[in-house]
Amino acid sequence: MSESKKFIVTIGREYGSGGRIIGKKLAEALGVNFYDNEVIDMIVSKSGLTNETVKKLDGQRTSSFLYSTFMSTQTAPLSDKIFFAQSKVIKELAEKESFVIVGRCGDYVLKDVENCLNIFIYAPMEDRIKRIQEVYDEKLNNYESYIKKQDKKRSDYYNYFTPNKWGDRSNYHLMIDSSIGIDSTVKMLLGVLEALNGGEE
Amino acid sequence: MSESKKFIVTIGREYGSGGRIIGKKLAEALGVNFYDNEVIDMIVSKSGLTNETVKKLDGQRTSSFLYSTFMSTQTAPLSDKIFFAQSKVIKELAEKESFVIVGRCGDYVLKDVENCLNIFIYAPMEDRIKRIQEVYDEKLNNYESYIKKQDKKRSDYYNYFTPNKWGDRSNYHLMIDSSIGIDSTVKMLLGVLEALNGGEE
Repeated sequence: MSESKKFIVTIGREYGSGGRIIGKKLAEALGVNFYDNEVIDMIVSKSGLTNETVKKLDGQRTSSFLYSTFMSTQTAPLSDKIFFAQSKVIKELAEKESFVIVGRCGDYVLKDVENCLNIFIYAPMEDRIKRIQEVYDEKLNNYESYIKKQDKKRSDYYNYFTPNKWGDRSNYHLMIDSSIGIDSTVKMLLGVLEALNGGEE
Repeated sequence: MSESKKFIVTIGREYGSGGRIIGKKLAEALGVNFYDNEVIDMIVSKSGLTNETVKKLDGQRTSSFLYSTFMSTQTAPLSDKIFFAQSKVIKELAEKESFVIVGRCGDYVLKDVENCLNIFIYAPMEDRIKRIQEVYDEKLNNYESYIKKQDKKRSDYYNYFTPNKWGDRSNYHLMIDSSIGIDSTVKMLLGVLEALNGGEE
């Protein structure tokens, strides 16, 4: 990655690992756009789907049975249409600018794009519980069970829309346990981008 | 990690990923010892086992059947004795000095040691094949099958001697795809240690 070259950082993350805030801080430090919900808004404006419908269905995967039924009629389910629209938007952005994107199967969607660094953020369960208690301020009966359910949703979504397995190291250039610290992780990522920028071997 | 504080970097790695050379270069850059075969030599001198016997058995796991048989007689198999001796040596080193260690289930052996950064290095299969062809200069009929067998050995060894799963992200602070470049990986790790050194939040 040369100084003037476009680059993209995609971030996948366990729920409560701080992956989103890491992405946001990284984008700020790099002076590039950060994409998350903004992407939905763009899809909406491009696809003509109402904001509400998209928000409702976004992130939900169609059950296998429904999927088969839909596919047998040659009509893609709405969640697939949304995903395809999302992917189109993300790919178009990648042609124009450097950015950091969290979620949205970014690593897979941008698999053919050059200078794309794919990151996965995780953390020990106790750190994630602490984070959702302190930072997200969520009050729950069973934090661990809730976190696992959120991870399951992310994993199902990723595994449905890509041929890969969520969280599998082969999808990512770098996997970081954020318990080393949010700011340390951001610093590290800045260092990585600088190291890659400097050329090699 | 403060400047004067002791620190340890443990490296687990896929076969052919360049994990060993990354560890060696990192230790050189940090000005600390690098442990790999040296550890065996120390074990030998401490345990009284002959160099040859240790080298032959080192890295081999006893089959489950043999293990059960041995355990039923309350006598630990030689490979277990070697592992325990290795662990003892590694823990003693960790009390005295900073170092980088590759393999030897270092992350698990040193799980109770402060300032221990656990790394796992991996790489796409095509990169690993290229590496063992070019760097290791190994001539084989089926590189992929050979690499998978070597990984299987490492995985079996780790999974036998620890309660954890080799390559599982929960064991490591950082997992790096070395296809971003050997020198870039070393630079990154130096950056990580510096970031951790700088304190946080």
